[in-house]
Amino acid sequence: MGDTIKELAILGSTGSIGQQTLDVVRALPHRFRIVGLAAGKNIPLLSKQIKEFKPRFVYYQDKKTRLPDGTYQLLSPEDIARHPQVDMVVIATSGNSGLSPTLAAVTAGKTVALANKESLVTAGEIIMSEAKRSKAQILPIDSEHNAIWQCLRGESQKPVQLILTASGGPFHGYSLAQLEGVTAKQALRHPSWQMGRKVTIDSATLMNKGFEVIEAHWLFDIPFDNIRVVIHPQSIIHSMVEFADGSVKAQLSYPDMRLPIQYALSYPERLANPQLPKLNWSTINNLTFEPPDFDTFPCLRLAIEAGRKGGTCPAVLCAADEVAVDLFLSQRIKFTDIASLTERVLEQHQSIVHPNLEEVMTADTWARQKVLQFIGV
Amino acid sequence: MGDTIKELAILGSTGSIGQQTLDVVRALPHRFRIVGLAAGKNIPLLSKQIKEFKPRFVYYQDKKTRLPDGTYQLLSPEDIARHPQVDMVVIATSGNSGLSPTLAAVTAGKTVALANKESLVTAGEIIMSEAKRSKAQILPIDSEHNAIWQCLRGESQKPVQLILTASGGPFHGYSLAQLEGVTAKQALRHPSWQMGRKVTIDSATLMNKGFEVIEAHWLFDIPFDNIRVVIHPQSIIHSMVEFADGSVKAQLSYPDMRLPIQYALSYPERLANPQLPKLNWSTINNLTFEPPDFDTFPCLRLAIEAGRKGGTCPAVLCAADEVAVDLFLSQRIKFTDIASLTERVLEQHQSIVHPNLEEVMTADTWARQKVLQFIGV
Repeated sequence: MGDTIKELAILGSTGSIGQQTLDVVRALPHRFRIVGLAAGKNIPLLSKQIKEFKPRFVYYQDKKTRLPDGTYQLLSPEDIARHPQVDMVVIATSGNSGLSPTLAAVTAGKTVALANKESLVTAGEIIMSEAKRSKAQILPIDSEHNAIWQCLRGESQKPVQLILTASGGPFHGYSLAQLEGVTAKQALRHPSWQMGRKVTIDSATLMNKGFEVIEAHWLFDIPFDNIRVVIHPQSIIHSMVEFADGSVKAQLSYPDMRLPIQYALSYPERLANPQLPKLNWSTINNLTFEPPDFDTFPCLRLAIEAGRKGGTCPAVLCAADEVAVDLFLSQRIKFTDIASLTERVLEQHQSIVHPNLEEVMTADTWARQKVLQFIGV
Repeated sequence: MGDTIKELAILGSTGSIGQQTLDVVRALPHRFRIVGLAAGKNIPLLSKQIKEFKPRFVYYQDKKTRLPDGTYQLLSPEDIARHPQVDMVVIATSGNSGLSPTLAAVTAGKTVALANKESLVTAGEIIMSEAKRSKAQILPIDSEHNAIWQCLRGESQKPVQLILTASGGPFHGYSLAQLEGVTAKQALRHPSWQMGRKVTIDSATLMNKGFEVIEAHWLFDIPFDNIRVVIHPQSIIHSMVEFADGSVKAQLSYPDMRLPIQYALSYPERLANPQLPKLNWSTINNLTFEPPDFDTFPCLRLAIEAGRKGGTCPAVLCAADEVAVDLFLSQRIKFTDIASLTERVLEQHQSIVHPNLEEVMTADTWARQKVLQFIGV
């Protein structure tokens, strides 16, 4: 085939998005080549990936274990992200470790396929203005933003409204009292999506949806008043866009991250991939919609408020949530404490408008310490 | 405003689509001007429209009644359709009277906003090859094809499947036995769409959906095997498109023809129009889908079969159906006779492959006589 091959670097290759990105590459070997892989601590899996994909550049966090021998060169995630041999950087890490390599890639004018939520939530203004300067393209992998991006394809005017769908998570329909007693095991059992642990808990609190509202604001330059969340438990419609004339476009597929990953990787082409499931209209009978319950799931409200306030508030939201989710997963706090701790930290925060990266980082550190202080660690 | 004004001719201005097109023009007077109006027998309404919109060119079929005086010129529908002063021709007639002016407009290389179904069903091959030659643009107004056209916007590859939605009509869920006794009054009561009488009956038999499958085949150059019909009683999703990667796009809005009309008129722009209803996600709770019942509604099967066979079969289908619907509306035959008469006529037809316009017309006339002959008129 005469098609060009894209050279990819995947940061966070052993995580859920990283592994699914490699699945897409495996299915379409004539279109993509892996030139860089970066991972944290899952050395056995990274070793396997190195053997299979033979990247030129590798990074791993856990220096205690030895990687298999090979012809690769060890580089920092930032150096992989901005390397001239890399056409596209897939930011597949979760948490705040995505920010620095995302900025490195954007500054270098790379095409960035972005799955990491925290970088846009905490530093959306910085990243988007840098992308504007460097003409870097940011292609969203998150199913909701990917859906919106697909719906905006070919449209020459800004939409009047974005409608983000949310499955509602495993506790959809629960009362606040019921939420008090839920366990990490229950919270990790998402009804429609297979995802990493952090994002699964964030989906259960709806904090994840709040992050996505903030991301959508930055990615598509849409005011918060024009971004709406609708609960859609079947996770078939991944999001919708309303245009000036009132027409709405939606993107549909089964909940499988490989489709939005592949769309970003292959854009502007769409590639046939027999491994991707096709919607079966003989079995899809019912798509339901309802408004979100902001009282039972206060994280959604907290996130949208932090997004509206802007400045360093979203960074504080993100950092406080990350620590609180960790504490919940290690059974140190209750599920409902994730929201209340994050809210208390936000209340005490003195936001800085138009912060630089250092100020974002300082706010992040402050928020993490504050959560630990609140629970007496 | 510095926007350009499009000069429109509306053929069939007193019908349902014609009146709604004038509603759109009324709402956006700085963007559209009416230069031509053509109507059949509703002279009182045409007279009002002439007073309001002051067209330069007028046609009316019923020459017994006098039109109000004015500065307009009387022209044939074909001469209006191809007039140099006309930027866009809206073909809003129903039945086979749309074919000749559609061809005139297409041959003249005009932009044609097409609501008439019969012309593409009976002469799709002729119209599309003429449009290719003359570089005429055919913009579909029918909500389903308009939805597909919106979903294809900006996509560079052909879709792998078109999914046409159908409300199911007023008799959705009926048994064949129940259908035997339904009256014209019941059949004219469509659950979600306000339309003309002919298309409302065709919606009740699902013949209309079959016509739309044939139209979709011609408009988007998609094989019949890749066009699917799904019953969606709420009429919110107007159709969907599946791409090579399995991603599906849908277009949604309340069932109101003014939106697809306006989209075609304003394309490639989308214009804000406060009169168009906006989807309210607080009240949309449930979108349902089910496969069509080909046994109870044989017209859908007949139409798709006629479309696959091609040649003069679709013209015969269309003509036989038009006569049968008239007979049903005047209470000469039962509702279920529409399908059985059309089927009998199709069975006796000797199809001509790649027919020219004369052969299409001959098949049409033959089919009309055949229906009348069958019922002994």
